[in-house]
Amino acid sequence: MYVLRFVTRNKHKLEEVRALVRSIAPEFDVEMLPVEKVEIQAESLEEIARFAADWLLARGYRNFFLEDAGLFIEALGGFPGPFSSYVYKKLGCRGILKLMSGVTNRRAYFKSVVALEFGGRIYLFTGIVRGTIAYEERGSHGFGFDPIFIPEGEIRTFAEMSTEEKNRYSHRARAVRAMIEFLRSRLTRRV
Amino acid sequence: MYVLRFVTRNKHKLEEVRALVRSIAPEFDVEMLPVEKVEIQAESLEEIARFAADWLLARGYRNFFLEDAGLFIEALGGFPGPFSSYVYKKLGCRGILKLMSGVTNRRAYFKSVVALEFGGRIYLFTGIVRGTIAYEERGSHGFGFDPIFIPEGEIRTFAEMSTEEKNRYSHRARAVRAMIEFLRSRLTRRV
Repeated sequence: MYVLRFVTRNKHKLEEVRALVRSIAPEFDVEMLPVEKVEIQAESLEEIARFAADWLLARGYRNFFLEDAGLFIEALGGFPGPFSSYVYKKLGCRGILKLMSGVTNRRAYFKSVVALEFGGRIYLFTGIVRGTIAYEERGSHGFGFDPIFIPEGEIRTFAEMSTEEKNRYSHRARAVRAMIEFLRSRLTRRV
Repeated sequence: MYVLRFVTRNKHKLEEVRALVRSIAPEFDVEMLPVEKVEIQAESLEEIARFAADWLLARGYRNFFLEDAGLFIEALGGFPGPFSSYVYKKLGCRGILKLMSGVTNRRAYFKSVVALEFGGRIYLFTGIVRGTIAYEERGSHGFGFDPIFIPEGEIRTFAEMSTEEKNRYSHRARAVRAMIEFLRSRLTRRV
């Protein structure tokens, strides 16, 4: 059993990632590493994730990963992007719907960047899911902007799906899968 | 002549602060220190300014000040707050007006926090100006959300005032004045 330590204080994220990891890689498990993460203000999730990981690395932390995600709405120039959790807290889904009222271009994507410490170095993995912004909130699963995001090829929002279904599509699942594949290849090589 | 080095890449801010300092303290002048500032994601401007100043201090920078400001709108839970420059870039004044459509509580304040390095320590100075969010953009002076902010006791927006007039009220002017008073007292004591 290889235990990955996830730097987060968001229990929803922890549960989502843990369910995913257990389903695709039974030899791995995930626990919470509840330390403070330094999040910089930047337009790129990669920059934010790398800074936070380097910060922990420089303070002696090892064997951890962290994740940053955002919803990028085309008609709003990528807003709320890396500031999604702040904007969600302040404006909610309703604020986004208000900003999008009268806007016909509904294209958006969710992006996730995972930063992993492995052997004293930081590795980044990304995942993207494209879709559209709904015209109203629907569903009660998930968290954040899930009730207004409809992934490509679906008619339901993320919040209308179970965690398992969401993990088939989601940006976060894609980034985490890439990390797991990387770890499997490295750990196998070691043996 | 005591030259203060202002960590900024915003020429509007530089000009505003320089004009203010020259008018209230002829023995001081301001020049730009164009280094990268690390801005963290936090809800408090004080935390953001202190982190950025500590960062520069730890890298050997001395004799500098920096400033962080934000527009805090009561009906939006303080949004856009410390993320004002990002939100301005993405949504502009029009985005804020859209979020505020149908909202009768127009109360808001601008806040500025100045962090000064002096003698190897960081000192913080704050300034606040209360006011209301206008129903439409007015004026062409200033920058950022100036066209939609009307300070208390006025009927004009900041963007309808000259720099000199704005400096009579503004959050930034109040924080910078506090810094100048502090420096005057310290520098006098030294002599």
